[in-house]
Amino acid sequence: MIAENVNQRISASELTSVVKYSSEGLVPAIIQDRASGSVLMMAWMNKETLAKTIETGRTWFWSRSRKELWAKGETSGDIQIVLDIAVDCDGDTLLIEVDQKGKGACHTGNFSCFYRGIAEMFESST
Amino acid sequence: MIAENVNQRISASELTSVVKYSSEGLVPAIIQDRASGSVLMMAWMNKETLAKTIETGRTWFWSRSRKELWAKGETSGDIQIVLDIAVDCDGDTLLIEVDQKGKGACHTGNFSCFYRGIAEMFESST
Repeated sequence: MIAENVNQRISASELTSVVKYSSEGLVPAIIQDRASGSVLMMAWMNKETLAKTIETGRTWFWSRSRKELWAKGETSGDIQIVLDIAVDCDGDTLLIEVDQKGKGACHTGNFSCFYRGIAEMFESST
Repeated sequence: MIAENVNQRISASELTSVVKYSSEGLVPAIIQDRASGSVLMMAWMNKETLAKTIETGRTWFWSRSRKELWAKGETSGDIQIVLDIAVDCDGDTLLIEVDQKGKGACHTGNFSCFYRGIAEMFESST
């Protein structure tokens, strides 16, 4: 999915140098499942967890509430194998394409964290 | 795409009441194109622009740099017709499915803002 829109392939070190972190040192990472095309979740990375994600080929995030890094699926086993990473035009958002393992990405048991949708006005379009 | 993962349809007013805004009153909105499945961009909404998005069926965002609301495609004509809106498990991220009109979502002329990808380690998987 990412590859269809990528027309510039840059090195991992170039990509990490392009990323602009917030004042808290964080960048939002959108996680998309390749097989289904589903957007699974959004979570935050800092410089260290982005580096670990690239290095290990699995997603690592920064928990703002617990103030610690975490490896996705570490306890559940529902890990995300990283297939591609893109950065947006202004460098402040990442899009990471994964192979979602196990039951899914959400701690509620749903495949995607986006399991609640608006009822009205969209019913005719779905 | 969103509909495949949605198992709870809630009203627009329920959805807006579920959203948790940051200390700046903002929530990140991921924009996904229905036809291609591409993640196009991520931008910020506040309470007012989320309401305008629901009301008008087009995307409205809050510009953190210009400190003003803006209607996507207002000058370029490349508007986004809203087809579905979902909120994530903890209420702090929106996923909006659209029909992207015109050339695309990015001011660079690319269809998606995510047009730069990592070269190494993913080449074998694409």
